[in-house]
Amino acid sequence: MNENIKVIKGGICTVSGVKAGGIRDGKYGVCIISFPKSMSTGVFTTNKIIAAPVKHTKNIMENNTLSAIVANSGNANCFTGTQGEEDCKEIVEAVSNKLDINKWETAIASTGVIGRKMPMDIINKLIDEIKLENSDEASTKSAKAIMTTDTVHKEYAVEIQLNNDDKVKIGGICKGTGMIAPNMATMLCFITTDAKIKDKNLLKQSLKKAADKSFNMVVVDGDESTNDELLLITTGEVDVTDDEGLDPNFQEGLEYLCIQLAKMMAADGEGATKFLEVEVNGTKTHGDAEIIAKSIVSSPLVKSAIFGCDPNWGRIIAAVGYSGIDIDADNISIAISNNEEKVDLVENSQILAFEGTKYLKKAEKIMKNKEIKIFVELYLGSETATAFGCDLTCEYVKINAEYTT
Amino acid sequence: MNENIKVIKGGICTVSGVKAGGIRDGKYGVCIISFPKSMSTGVFTTNKIIAAPVKHTKNIMENNTLSAIVANSGNANCFTGTQGEEDCKEIVEAVSNKLDINKWETAIASTGVIGRKMPMDIINKLIDEIKLENSDEASTKSAKAIMTTDTVHKEYAVEIQLNNDDKVKIGGICKGTGMIAPNMATMLCFITTDAKIKDKNLLKQSLKKAADKSFNMVVVDGDESTNDELLLITTGEVDVTDDEGLDPNFQEGLEYLCIQLAKMMAADGEGATKFLEVEVNGTKTHGDAEIIAKSIVSSPLVKSAIFGCDPNWGRIIAAVGYSGIDIDADNISIAISNNEEKVDLVENSQILAFEGTKYLKKAEKIMKNKEIKIFVELYLGSETATAFGCDLTCEYVKINAEYTT
Repeated sequence: MNENIKVIKGGICTVSGVKAGGIRDGKYGVCIISFPKSMSTGVFTTNKIIAAPVKHTKNIMENNTLSAIVANSGNANCFTGTQGEEDCKEIVEAVSNKLDINKWETAIASTGVIGRKMPMDIINKLIDEIKLENSDEASTKSAKAIMTTDTVHKEYAVEIQLNNDDKVKIGGICKGTGMIAPNMATMLCFITTDAKIKDKNLLKQSLKKAADKSFNMVVVDGDESTNDELLLITTGEVDVTDDEGLDPNFQEGLEYLCIQLAKMMAADGEGATKFLEVEVNGTKTHGDAEIIAKSIVSSPLVKSAIFGCDPNWGRIIAAVGYSGIDIDADNISIAISNNEEKVDLVENSQILAFEGTKYLKKAEKIMKNKEIKIFVELYLGSETATAFGCDLTCEYVKINAEYTT
Repeated sequence: MNENIKVIKGGICTVSGVKAGGIRDGKYGVCIISFPKSMSTGVFTTNKIIAAPVKHTKNIMENNTLSAIVANSGNANCFTGTQGEEDCKEIVEAVSNKLDINKWETAIASTGVIGRKMPMDIINKLIDEIKLENSDEASTKSAKAIMTTDTVHKEYAVEIQLNNDDKVKIGGICKGTGMIAPNMATMLCFITTDAKIKDKNLLKQSLKKAADKSFNMVVVDGDESTNDELLLITTGEVDVTDDEGLDPNFQEGLEYLCIQLAKMMAADGEGATKFLEVEVNGTKTHGDAEIIAKSIVSSPLVKSAIFGCDPNWGRIIAAVGYSGIDIDADNISIAISNNEEKVDLVENSQILAFEGTKYLKKAEKIMKNKEIKIFVELYLGSETATAFGCDLTCEYVKINAEYTT
């Protein structure tokens, strides 16, 4: 890890000027985040069915700076037609009035059941009751208010020392456990920073790059939602650019924060008992490494084997093969680790982890851990990518057989 | 169904001149099929990791007519290096000697664990012991010998009346339950027919077309195997071509047989309690309909909902949306049926199956059945495609957490 990046306590409120509040009523929750008029950028779902709040937020962000975000859990306000759009506007107006800002300065996000009318009486009541403040508790309450099947709330913050010795903070909250696929399915993530990046394109690229290395590499079940929003708010206190562009420490810090939040989502995958990381090395292009890493981390057979503590490299090999990327089948190495110990299973396509070998014994011991990392080396180039996921368990099936999305 | 296609008893031995035999020893099984020198064609795995038997069969089929097929279960002979290739040749030679044919006339297929040396002593013993005959029992024994996690053996046969009133037969056996994805993962299927098709390209196209409508539309878990083989043997008794090409009744009969075998595989999906069929209509291209149908039938969330008897059209909509195909979100209809009753859930993007409605009540009743069909209409064109699958259950996870592939 870059020594200029320091993990600090808190979440979105670690940035001065950011106030937040969150509240729940049974399965419904609302959080509001307010901040001085800020340059902001977002990454949104690529699902062709787009929920009303996502449409609304994309629209207003094209031409406006933001001053607030409102997000609710329990209802996705998706596939709800004109009524859904009206409900969306009503919520945005209520929050803008509460905060005394223009309604085109308020972004909105929703997560929950698809195709049901928003429970406007409950949402309005919650908006009314929320108290905003700048505190770690307020960040935590916000993170809790947007949870759906999440079992833990998710927040993270870092402080970064720039090359010019200035310090800048980044904090984030997010939610997401199921329907998480490449391209950030059903996740909401709000990130604040006191950084100043005047060039909107540079800001957009910076977030896109961080999302591609983190949220877009998380796979829980391969389904992608209609409601994903990742928003980055820059309050503009600390300039993180110089003549050459963005300070690399800022970019690394943002990526580090996004990866930590993405890992939290993967580890909290619906029904998951284990966190799975897959690092693919030695491909010709970065895209090849990404596709192979996702292919392995998405494989129901690999995921079931992880659940069963079975060092089943045959399924890993099969997932490499059906990814569609050209590989040299006669030169592949596979290893696994638990972040402490590492063992080779296959070396240059020679199988080491036969029955009765020390390799298999060690592998079986490693597989009993909560965090498993798979390494694949393909010897075709120098590119690399890492994907994040979890095991597939009976509990996942139970949760999703019983929960109406 | 085309009235010229008649379902008949039996499997591969329904075709005269075809002899078969199968035998098991614990988790290992071998089947041998012999026939007069026949024009044949095949469809093989698209996985980049290809098992030794698949390579061997592809090679010999390029330049030779076949006289026999040998297949084993219990060991995939994949990722087994030079040793695997030698074992492959040894098996082919043993069978060719037994049948007194040339070794380049024997195709070979394997299914089972990846990366383990073939148990040649057991395989050779079984080859020795097999008795071949032309009978329904022999077909059934063969189908049973190639089973792995299959819970039932799979065979089917049809008799087709051609336009010139001649009759032709087609029979098949297959295995496959897990790792079944688009492009026929871990399935072996051997089809015999007394049809005569002199043009090898026409024969190849005919099988490819049938596979695309059947085996390539089956999704159990999205994993694809290294060992898939689908072989079609034509003994050449009944000419099924005329000046205009292939008799359409023959093609329909072949497709019908393949779809029936594909449905058996889907229904026998690992841990499955329900058979799922998804018909997508009204797309601009056939490819669009295929992609959307597969997207729905593969969705872990849709599959979990089917297991939970939940008519969760929201997840169906989400799977349509993330398929990547351009659709009109304001004009989608969704219905479900149990092959007897049908109910609309969403009509022209208006939700009918609200809580408390007769639609939802009827839908909940339908969802309790063993066979569920989902209909999606997109109103963008006149193309259609159907995909086959099953529910996702705890049992699937258990089987694959404990079974070493």
